[in-house]
Amino acid sequence: MTTAFFDRLADRIATVDSVVSVGLDTDPDRIPDHLQDKDLPQWAFNRRIIDATHEHAACYKPNAAFYESADGWRALRETIAYAHGKDVPVLLDAKRADIGNTTRQYAEMLEAVDAITVNPYMGRDSLQPFLDRADKGVFVLCRTSNPGREDLQDLELDSGEPLYRRVAALADLWNANDNVGLVVGATGPDELETIREAVPSLPFLVPGVGAQGGDAEAAVEYGLTADGVGLVNSSRGIIYAGEQEGDAFAAAAGQAAKRLKRRLNQYRSAD
Amino acid sequence: MTTAFFDRLADRIATVDSVVSVGLDTDPDRIPDHLQDKDLPQWAFNRRIIDATHEHAACYKPNAAFYESADGWRALRETIAYAHGKDVPVLLDAKRADIGNTTRQYAEMLEAVDAITVNPYMGRDSLQPFLDRADKGVFVLCRTSNPGREDLQDLELDSGEPLYRRVAALADLWNANDNVGLVVGATGPDELETIREAVPSLPFLVPGVGAQGGDAEAAVEYGLTADGVGLVNSSRGIIYAGEQEGDAFAAAAGQAAKRLKRRLNQYRSAD
Repeated sequence: MTTAFFDRLADRIATVDSVVSVGLDTDPDRIPDHLQDKDLPQWAFNRRIIDATHEHAACYKPNAAFYESADGWRALRETIAYAHGKDVPVLLDAKRADIGNTTRQYAEMLEAVDAITVNPYMGRDSLQPFLDRADKGVFVLCRTSNPGREDLQDLELDSGEPLYRRVAALADLWNANDNVGLVVGATGPDELETIREAVPSLPFLVPGVGAQGGDAEAAVEYGLTADGVGLVNSSRGIIYAGEQEGDAFAAAAGQAAKRLKRRLNQYRSAD
Repeated sequence: MTTAFFDRLADRIATVDSVVSVGLDTDPDRIPDHLQDKDLPQWAFNRRIIDATHEHAACYKPNAAFYESADGWRALRETIAYAHGKDVPVLLDAKRADIGNTTRQYAEMLEAVDAITVNPYMGRDSLQPFLDRADKGVFVLCRTSNPGREDLQDLELDSGEPLYRRVAALADLWNANDNVGLVVGATGPDELETIREAVPSLPFLVPGVGAQGGDAEAAVEYGLTADGVGLVNSSRGIIYAGEQEGDAFAAAAGQAAKRLKRRLNQYRSAD
């Protein structure tokens, strides 16, 4: 049996002394000119980003939205294999959920990666094929980093708790295989704290510390479990850190990843 | 300016005298042997299904989950073009939502199709790029047909209404471009009725009348607007209606689509 995802993640965090998740939101329109005539420009871009950042990366998080084409899918496959060649786990940010035979199709995507993000709106059975994979991580959207989180996630239930709190409790209930985490944005540090108190054992994936201006200290303090397992993600803040001319973008991404690692490590407890 | 999606859909419904949505949940493992050695087996399968069913189809609804590979994506593109060649609109069942620059990527998928399904959990801004496309339809998941709908969708809010009712009201509010519909399952006919009363003007996409055993009469009575616009979907009940040997599957699918059309037409009001 393969090692559980969160054990593999804990090992990776220890190896690189970093909880940085590098988001590969690779927009085909933002790839430097000299890579545009490569066979798979997104893959050419990602390979250079991985070369420059892997020493600071606890994981890579490609967002599936950027790879939804025939070439995109090939670029994603190459990217995943290359990250694995550097011993870095890959979390596919797919925000998936569907029913019955359909979700089983999505679960096949999990074969190639180590973990995935899922959307809870359709309920437990829509996530079951992911939850059943004890060797893979499943990060359930709980309280996201965007303004629209107020529309549904913050609604108050008749029990007096907001919907996102119920989602956290449900995810905890669904965690029979110790493979469930939550997505909780750094843009709401108070809610991040209350969610951590409600579900002490679930690792969080915390987006929003980069371009969205979230709270890095809260991301570390509440995003990680007592064992120090969790991820703080930056996408655009790393991969688009430099000028998009020549190969300088990769070195800039490496510097940005290193800076974020150091910034976050200020707040991580000594082992 | 292109015609609004719901006007195009109304025209198509009138032309074929049908509100049947044919779900193209084309599982690569369930394609007959003699098509498995084609260049793109899913496309070979779908082309035969379209040939056999288009006279009864108000739309085709490919589920994106089944096309998440390089070849799958190519098969989907061919399928969409072929359906359009038969003048049938295509609704991509993608259940998408994401934030900012990411959703704009998803919205590009909309270029190829006529409408899409989206997940409301991340709120309005996660759907805005879809909502902004006045020429495209946007079906918001409201109350789905699967058992897991109870986990979140049926939760009672402090206002006394269930979450799915709030989602219906929000979708109505987000309908500035007259391009919003709802996904409401036929497996909950009472809730289907109350949602119809709450949002009289939104067309519904009603899944669950086939393999899931939902209520066809309620699907028609409450799924359609007063103008008769809406869709009742069957996927497996049509495309896997026949034996999966030889080309008989396509004829069986054609018969199944015709039967469903007639069954639903019993409940449609005379014009």
